[in-house]
Amino acid sequence: MTKKKSLQPRATEKKGKEPVAKLKKRGNETAESMAARQRDISVSEFFAKNRHLLGFDNPRKALLTAIKEAVDNSLDACEEAGILPDITIEVEELQNDRFRIVIEDNGPGIVKRQIPNIFGKLLYGSKFHRLKMSRGQQGIGISAAGMYGMLTTGKPVEIISRTNKNRPAHLFKLQIDTKRNKPEIISDLEVDWDVSHGTRVSIELEGKHTRGKQSVDEYLQQTAIANPHVQMLYKEPGGQAITYKRSSSELPMHTSEIKPHPYGVELGVLQTMLKDSKARSISAFLQSEFSRVSQRVAEEICTNAEISSKAYTSRIGRHDVEKLMQGITSTKIMNPPTNCVAPIGEEQLGMGLESVMPAEFYTSTTRPPAVYRGNPFIIEAALAYGGEGRDADTPARVLRFANRVPLLYQQGGCCAYQSVVQTNWRNYGLTQPRGALPSGPLTIVVHMASVWVPFTSESKEAIAGYPEIEEQIVRALQECGRKLKIFLSRRKREAEAQQKQDYIETYIPHIGIGLKELLGFSEREEKKVVEKLTGLLERHRS
Amino acid sequence: MTKKKSLQPRATEKKGKEPVAKLKKRGNETAESMAARQRDISVSEFFAKNRHLLGFDNPRKALLTAIKEAVDNSLDACEEAGILPDITIEVEELQNDRFRIVIEDNGPGIVKRQIPNIFGKLLYGSKFHRLKMSRGQQGIGISAAGMYGMLTTGKPVEIISRTNKNRPAHLFKLQIDTKRNKPEIISDLEVDWDVSHGTRVSIELEGKHTRGKQSVDEYLQQTAIANPHVQMLYKEPGGQAITYKRSSSELPMHTSEIKPHPYGVELGVLQTMLKDSKARSISAFLQSEFSRVSQRVAEEICTNAEISSKAYTSRIGRHDVEKLMQGITSTKIMNPPTNCVAPIGEEQLGMGLESVMPAEFYTSTTRPPAVYRGNPFIIEAALAYGGEGRDADTPARVLRFANRVPLLYQQGGCCAYQSVVQTNWRNYGLTQPRGALPSGPLTIVVHMASVWVPFTSESKEAIAGYPEIEEQIVRALQECGRKLKIFLSRRKREAEAQQKQDYIETYIPHIGIGLKELLGFSEREEKKVVEKLTGLLERHRS
Repeated sequence: MTKKKSLQPRATEKKGKEPVAKLKKRGNETAESMAARQRDISVSEFFAKNRHLLGFDNPRKALLTAIKEAVDNSLDACEEAGILPDITIEVEELQNDRFRIVIEDNGPGIVKRQIPNIFGKLLYGSKFHRLKMSRGQQGIGISAAGMYGMLTTGKPVEIISRTNKNRPAHLFKLQIDTKRNKPEIISDLEVDWDVSHGTRVSIELEGKHTRGKQSVDEYLQQTAIANPHVQMLYKEPGGQAITYKRSSSELPMHTSEIKPHPYGVELGVLQTMLKDSKARSISAFLQSEFSRVSQRVAEEICTNAEISSKAYTSRIGRHDVEKLMQGITSTKIMNPPTNCVAPIGEEQLGMGLESVMPAEFYTSTTRPPAVYRGNPFIIEAALAYGGEGRDADTPARVLRFANRVPLLYQQGGCCAYQSVVQTNWRNYGLTQPRGALPSGPLTIVVHMASVWVPFTSESKEAIAGYPEIEEQIVRALQECGRKLKIFLSRRKREAEAQQKQDYIETYIPHIGIGLKELLGFSEREEKKVVEKLTGLLERHRS
Repeated sequence: MTKKKSLQPRATEKKGKEPVAKLKKRGNETAESMAARQRDISVSEFFAKNRHLLGFDNPRKALLTAIKEAVDNSLDACEEAGILPDITIEVEELQNDRFRIVIEDNGPGIVKRQIPNIFGKLLYGSKFHRLKMSRGQQGIGISAAGMYGMLTTGKPVEIISRTNKNRPAHLFKLQIDTKRNKPEIISDLEVDWDVSHGTRVSIELEGKHTRGKQSVDEYLQQTAIANPHVQMLYKEPGGQAITYKRSSSELPMHTSEIKPHPYGVELGVLQTMLKDSKARSISAFLQSEFSRVSQRVAEEICTNAEISSKAYTSRIGRHDVEKLMQGITSTKIMNPPTNCVAPIGEEQLGMGLESVMPAEFYTSTTRPPAVYRGNPFIIEAALAYGGEGRDADTPARVLRFANRVPLLYQQGGCCAYQSVVQTNWRNYGLTQPRGALPSGPLTIVVHMASVWVPFTSESKEAIAGYPEIEEQIVRALQECGRKLKIFLSRRKREAEAQQKQDYIETYIPHIGIGLKELLGFSEREEKKVVEKLTGLLERHRS
């Protein structure tokens, strides 16, 4: 459609009477001078300059984020390969503010040719293009950690990986060429390694080691809560080692990859899918590209769309795509399959919480699967109430998880936190300042498991507030809240009963004495009356 | 360094006794099966799936974000070309939840060959690779808006642009090929256009039109506050039109592009810069690549680093780079030049605020330039106090701006808001609940101008909390606060004085009558005493 026509500049700058020319002395730009500077920005350059988007805002958070990305990858790999994860995390302080972190797993290893891309390139991976629950989903995390290390220390990332005891272990030293977003191989060797399969990543980086809130310790502790099948050995900077033993030798339920659900698709996406599809007819296209579309459903969609189900996909125009969208919307289609999402499970979650959080009362719940924008998800919640060391005025503590990964930052911006605040905890016997967390010795756990968790930033620290997700979280919290109310009411009743009992024991004898004096009762008569009265009141009470 | 060696698999799966093989029935993966799925993710695919990162979370926000991106680009282009901006924004409701937005400017236009890349490709632009204050900085905004439109409606973006009345106007219809992040040209025509230079962007998208908070209206109103030199015509969906007239015909101060400052550079970056530099000696490298490095400063850095200033850049090893970093840190270098940053100005900011916010008292301040991570920036603040319609209990309203762009979302996560909360407003005569905004009929304006605003997400809605930035904001607020205190104290004094005056007027005559009766004064004597007493008390008061 391009009209071929010479576009030589026909006017010189001297000729023009445009403001552009008039103001030239101000150092002004023209369309041409601007064009000369317009160019591509590599995704690594982008994130190197915006590294706070990836969780590398400051040295303290950077240390945590780098460890988190490596551990997340290890856990994903182990589970996909059906291996019970055994992870070693080592943090070594090299000099002031400079650390080496080493994460080693017993996973399936990585084939040699993929190592450079996985660790030396942003936006590369196996998890982005599929709908399946996993910790990683973007293909950015671990390579970003390596890039951060390289930027702050100049040192390459070191990877050792082995896929099988009969194959050699490979040691790579890699850097990212940020201008081109490509791995640069510094060295590539076969090495002896006394591990039959697994991966070991070592990154030198600028960091800061702290304890307490938002620390590596907290991250590992919470990881243990949500992953009772994981064993971790944490070697701290000082040389001390902490073991998080697995409390379950059962791997999480195996999850399947699913196709997108028709309800979640958008017009433009549908158009692209049609263009790319190998299916010839609309009916075949619908059945092969979407989940929950049988031949019958496909026919129904086409009928509702007023398009022949035998129409060629290649001949579908934009207007037909719009009709097809309407057809999808007006057809009742079963919810997506949910074997793609594996909850932690009520029992396991409760156990995980009990193992690290001493309390008087525990409850947990797993909601039935739900769907947002075509993506299946499951919400779980748990509460731990009571226990020493926390008074009635402190706000509750909220632990947030997404696909079994603890979220330690950006609490205020997270849909899980907001749902906790929205829930009316006064209904369940707690105090709650307006627009705030409930008060008391309470720990609240929220877990979202999904094939695609909508994070509010690349650093994956907070869940975006889709209404469907909020609704499920609030319901899960309400379920737990009702059980908490029963516990609290019973406790209150018991306390009141105890108080009444105390009253009876305190006053009845005095009544006896009074009656004795008034009516001239004998000791025996008095005792009998007191016994009778006590019995009567006790019966009344219960 | 690669050891050339055949890597044929030496073991078959039957042979292995690994857990991997044992658990195969579970549908487990191996390193090989995983490798088969690993691949590149295009940046458009990434953002299409994560579009909430770009501000396209929901239809309401999407409409605002798309308009914002287009207007920001128009303003940047006009100012760079030294043209007083005249922008038309048209929002047309096509059907339920579907809109066409059209933004037209009188800017310098875009040269034909760059139109497809600028509108049909993410991470492309002229602003990322330089250090200069501008609204856009990432090369994502407008192409993302077009991509969102395409995804939700299937329609291409339409662009008309003309660089000069002697050249033709070009009309492009473009789509993004998301799998490859490349523009797809649907049509490309020369057209008649009665505009001598400028650009007109038209996007069809799914949206929701609202008024009030976080609406297009609010965005345009606040844009007018921070950009008194801009004229805007807003054609609303209903057909009504609102004009925001320019209140100043002076363009913002022209800003220059600067080189990075040595204090902001990191080891890994320095290493890459050395590798890419054309300068032969270290001294020449330092002088040509950084700002504020004269020959003398370069020599001093090298002396402190214990490196010869004549050393070849090509021969610098990693260890030397570390020494060079130490050399930089231990050398006193002048702050970066600040002609790269143009504040709105105390007076202009005050005028802008007055024109839209009726109040009793205004104050504004512009802080001296400061530096975070090598980037110069300037903080400005303004207050408007008093006026009708807002009572003493409502929290203050905070207006946030970054490089003259209003920030309407993610207030809680923004360093500007947090600094307002941190400031102790009780010092300035206001009430302030703990950890909250001060209360009262108060509007607080914060503006950050910088060559690189550190946003917390690609949607550019909140400023990240660098300590240097927070400090400057708090100081600016304190300056304004002190002036507010003077106003409030004076008002309080005046109110008290008025009250005293009222007392005097009420009671003195009674005293006169009393004295008259007690001492047998005549009418004249009584009058005289009352006058004298009043005079005495009045004098006392002032």
